[in-house]
Amino acid sequence: MMMSRSIFVINPNSSEAVTQAIDRALDCLRTPGELEIRCLTLEEGPPGIESQRQSDGVIRPLCNLIGRLEEQAAAFVIACFSDPGLHSAREETTRPVLGIAESGALTALTMGQRFGVISILAGSIPRHMRYFGAMGILDRLAGDRAVGLGVAELADHDKTFARMVEVAKSLRDGDGANVLVLGCAGMADYRTPLAKELKMPVVDPTQSAVAMAIGRVRLSW
Amino acid sequence: MMMSRSIFVINPNSSEAVTQAIDRALDCLRTPGELEIRCLTLEEGPPGIESQRQSDGVIRPLCNLIGRLEEQAAAFVIACFSDPGLHSAREETTRPVLGIAESGALTALTMGQRFGVISILAGSIPRHMRYFGAMGILDRLAGDRAVGLGVAELADHDKTFARMVEVAKSLRDGDGANVLVLGCAGMADYRTPLAKELKMPVVDPTQSAVAMAIGRVRLSW
Amino acid sequence: MMMSRSIFVINPNSSEAVTQAIDRALDCLRTPGELEIRCLTLEEGPPGIESQRQSDGVIRPLCNLIGRLEEQAAAFVIACFSDPGLHSAREETTRPVLGIAESGALTALTMGQRFGVISILAGSIPRHMRYFGAMGILDRLAGDRAVGLGVAELADHDKTFARMVEVAKSLRDGDGANVLVLGCAGMADYRTPLAKELKMPVVDPTQSAVAMAIGRVRLSW
Amino acid sequence: MMMSRSIFVINPNSSEAVTQAIDRALDCLRTPGELEIRCLTLEEGPPGIESQRQSDGVIRPLCNLIGRLEEQAAAFVIACFSDPGLHSAREETTRPVLGIAESGALTALTMGQRFGVISILAGSIPRHMRYFGAMGILDRLAGDRAVGLGVAELADHDKTFARMVEVAKSLRDGDGANVLVLGCAGMADYRTPLAKELKMPVVDPTQSAVAMAIGRVRLSW
Amino acid sequence: MMMSRSIFVINPNSSEAVTQAIDRALDCLRTPGELEIRCLTLEEGPPGIESQRQSDGVIRPLCNLIGRLEEQAAAFVIACFSDPGLHSAREETTRPVLGIAESGALTALTMGQRFGVISILAGSIPRHMRYFGAMGILDRLAGDRAVGLGVAELADHDKTFARMVEVAKSLRDGDGANVLVLGCAGMADYRTPLAKELKMPVVDPTQSAVAMAIGRVRLSW
Amino acid sequence: MMMSRSIFVINPNSSEAVTQAIDRALDCLRTPGELEIRCLTLEEGPPGIESQRQSDGVIRPLCNLIGRLEEQAAAFVIACFSDPGLHSAREETTRPVLGIAESGALTALTMGQRFGVISILAGSIPRHMRYFGAMGILDRLAGDRAVGLGVAELADHDKTFARMVEVAKSLRDGDGANVLVLGCAGMADYRTPLAKELKMPVVDPTQSAVAMAIGRVRLSW
Repeated sequence: MMMSRSIFVINPNSSEAVTQAIDRALDCLRTPGELEIRCLTLEEGPPGIESQRQSDGVIRPLCNLIGRLEEQAAAFVIACFSDPGLHSAREETTRPVLGIAESGALTALTMGQRFGVISILAGSIPRHMRYFGAMGILDRLAGDRAVGLGVAELADHDKTFARMVEVAKSLRDGDGANVLVLGCAGMADYRTPLAKELKMPVVDPTQSAVAMAIGRVRLSW
Repeated sequence: MMMSRSIFVINPNSSEAVTQAIDRALDCLRTPGELEIRCLTLEEGPPGIESQRQSDGVIRPLCNLIGRLEEQAAAFVIACFSDPGLHSAREETTRPVLGIAESGALTALTMGQRFGVISILAGSIPRHMRYFGAMGILDRLAGDRAVGLGVAELADHDKTFARMVEVAKSLRDGDGANVLVLGCAGMADYRTPLAKELKMPVVDPTQSAVAMAIGRVRLSW
Repeated sequence: MMMSRSIFVINPNSSEAVTQAIDRALDCLRTPGELEIRCLTLEEGPPGIESQRQSDGVIRPLCNLIGRLEEQAAAFVIACFSDPGLHSAREETTRPVLGIAESGALTALTMGQRFGVISILAGSIPRHMRYFGAMGILDRLAGDRAVGLGVAELADHDKTFARMVEVAKSLRDGDGANVLVLGCAGMADYRTPLAKELKMPVVDPTQSAVAMAIGRVRLSW
Repeated sequence: MMMSRSIFVINPNSSEAVTQAIDRALDCLRTPGELEIRCLTLEEGPPGIESQRQSDGVIRPLCNLIGRLEEQAAAFVIACFSDPGLHSAREETTRPVLGIAESGALTALTMGQRFGVISILAGSIPRHMRYFGAMGILDRLAGDRAVGLGVAELADHDKTFARMVEVAKSLRDGDGANVLVLGCAGMADYRTPLAKELKMPVVDPTQSAVAMAIGRVRLSW
Repeated sequence: MMMSRSIFVINPNSSEAVTQAIDRALDCLRTPGELEIRCLTLEEGPPGIESQRQSDGVIRPLCNLIGRLEEQAAAFVIACFSDPGLHSAREETTRPVLGIAESGALTALTMGQRFGVISILAGSIPRHMRYFGAMGILDRLAGDRAVGLGVAELADHDKTFARMVEVAKSLRDGDGANVLVLGCAGMADYRTPLAKELKMPVVDPTQSAVAMAIGRVRLSW
Repeated sequence: MMMSRSIFVINPNSSEAVTQAIDRALDCLRTPGELEIRCLTLEEGPPGIESQRQSDGVIRPLCNLIGRLEEQAAAFVIACFSDPGLHSAREETTRPVLGIAESGALTALTMGQRFGVISILAGSIPRHMRYFGAMGILDRLAGDRAVGLGVAELADHDKTFARMVEVAKSLRDGDGANVLVLGCAGMADYRTPLAKELKMPVVDPTQSAVAMAIGRVRLSW
């Protein structure tokens, strides 16, 4: 049945613009006659997820949405770098659920010995550290550094890109990263230009997670 | 003001019997004219917290309760071994918030080189492992083993104690634990008999957390 | 161009029967009009890779083969659980190269908190340990235990399966594994029956690696 | 009996001024009618403990003193950041013995994801590293950096404070610390101004250890 | 000058029989006209070092002895598996000082992927764990298990050997050790028979330390 | 028999000048009438080993050479900081085989708490990291930084030394190294001047490995 062949990529914040950027970035993973990849916005989500409270706050509506979609779903991807509710969602549904931080970091491990993370805000770094600690991969982490720009500044793409390049160089030259992970679902548009500028691999975590989800679906795991 | 001198110990499951057991275990930490220690039951909680979903599910009402109590509170203790919402709660309030798994494990580190955890259910162990990994203390963990009894059997104290002794011996003799942590807020009554039977220190995590909370309040940290 | 759309899965031992078992296991990852998945046997390889010398010994012919195939290749998978020559191969070609031990272990990290490995021979375990150490994921490893059967006994499927079940139970019940990884490319046929028998996820590493390779090709990483 | 209700805080160096600073810092932990907190100077100690030899050298007289005080003691705190003789003392007496480095670091783990240590001398850092390694908490250590001032300069409080602020900023901004631990019993007076200046939590290790000791005594552990 | 060419191997317990066993085990490291290897008994030591107090208790007389011997010494070896006073001794003298636990464990790392330790008493294991943690090599430790025999039983060589074989098999087969380290200076006589019986390498730590000391002296490090 | 008393130190690159520098550095480990120390150049090796492919590429001829020399050999040392083929060689021969990276790093662990590595090229650092990860000693690694000079510049000793001093200071002052390891067999001549300039211990890895090999031979391990 067609409907049961969708991978649902859920953006747990309520910003349609982020969902659209995610959607664009997934085009290369779409093939005709195959699994559909559908990007959704969690209506109940906050405009952005910047704190542990916001991350924990979306778990309930996110799990509810997953529950409602289960019949039509082949797999789910939670498209926020805090992987909110990942382990709850895995209990909620029998379908595979991938988180973009988990998938992005694991994929990076196949592309470089030590990975660096480019975060939006410094306040998210302790949350990421707890998560990479729970994943048991801190020995592979070179560093996690924040762009540190406010919403207004993030709207300025040139400024944002310039700052991302600066952070990326610091991760590469100071911390010894040889692969980078974008620490936010909304950064997908910067992946290619950043990889070119830095001449090193850059992982978009949502793309990684969807690629892993496709594999899981095909393998019926 | 008297009311601002209360440490609120919140049992995030809705079992009054558990809250009462916790309350009894904290008597030795009460002194006249000092901080009040008040044990509350989270009405919105499930009867027990056995899954990640149940653990994540209490975060919102728990944080709401903490928000409502803040004015009267000197500190908060979250009395469930999954430490649900600990980092959210730390953002919710400026008062110290302690989790019993975190406090119990850290206290155990001062009493033995490798700690063993006695859990109720095997299904909770991966959740604990993620948490001890996030805490960065896995090198000190000897093992985490489950009693594995259902609700009906847990009501039988003799049977439960016999099984706890068995698990404790396995942690001590097989895994090399030299201190034990009770992996549930509701096990407080077994601490003293278990320590006597095993002749090794046994940590009740709620007592540990309240003791740390008292210190934090006095030091105004 | 059609020819450039092949993922080459190279079995570095010279056993055609193993290559055929791998080939069968990859059928579910094949879709019409898409990337071809072609399984090859390394003619210069030994009948099986059981030692470090055998593992190191195939690196040169394997890299030569990869070099010769580069023009037609979209990606490569090295289908031996020792991941022989993985990092050399990544220098040899600009195409993505995945190793089945690396991909299998990383995929397992998304399916359980601690993974157990079922190896053929005890003598391979130190080699695996060095590798998981290099990968920095030892905190997630529950254990690696060997089936320990000779070639003649491995030909007896029932005996082999019975022994795998025994090892799997020891990893699950004694070591605390909640996901299993098959420690050999030639075990693919046992994945489904083993998962059913144990009621826990079992990862076939070659399937994992090919799934990751498909993602990498589509994303042009 | 009143006398058995004392927590003895032993400064193992012979500087009365340090003992007095410690004593002042513990006032907030004193409550009427409760455990007495008594600060002692180890007469046989050196003026300061700056080397492994000085640290090891005080173990014998320290344990002797602990032995002599046992009858009157409820608990002991060893007030030197090298925790000299901590494990010997735990064998010497049945009373709880807390070390300030152990207690300070563990307490910091409840206040931030990665802790930074402000040491007096660079020469002490390898000793601290061995100790944090033995504690198994290196994944949580952001860094340990030294003020590097001589005795004469340390007498100049403004200069010392300015240098501490500089080191603290380096730990916070360069190393990613989000909580600080004072790496010396004699720095207690700087805790509050440093926390204010840096706008981040600062742990005085002696206060932490005494707070933990009070808990242990009340719980009869 | 002849006298400055001695490596002093100091047994910090007062048992001459242990010193003699050590002395015999070092014969193969002696060559004519070369460095003398002289084994001494620390008169002030206890009959055996079984506790942290005993270990710490010998540091002062041991360092004093090292200080008195410095002029005649090319290097020192502290021949007790607790490495008492190792870091103090390194400050006491400019000559190289090796500890047998450190040297034995590091040497074992070149002979197998995971090492097992055969200790005399269970009570020493937490002390060893702290030490291996401080050394940062816990990922390579398979296990540390105790023979658990009293002094009278240890005098019975056949019984002791039988028990050592039993512990060694448990380390090899249960814990996955592929090299063993004797956890006591006094076990040297058992090395060769144990290696033969188990068919795996067995490291005598005193021999390792003296071998490393010879290297250090020749290299003038 | 005299011929069986040789330690063969094999330089796996084909640069005679490197072999000669190694040979000079080993003079202090030679004593009359003892083990001969013979340095050989692997004819089939590349001029330098700078990539994983070059490292893997020498394994086969290196093992062949070891096989041919076995009769005359007491032990082997592989004199390249990538330790190419170390574990293969250990299977090839019953004689002890030491690798200079392994021996150098382990020896450094007895001379400082955190070691820094001075590499020639940045591209080798990920390879080193995988190796130190496989060794399980990353907690002791302060950093690995590259001199980054090309062949022409390396021929200029003054320039090379100046750059090594710069890198060494960065490892010491920025990364907290208290012992250094030369990350290349060809750097032996710089050991003494660098140690003098930095006033800290500097380990030449080839010297370390030969010293360990001498011990292994004498002990018949």
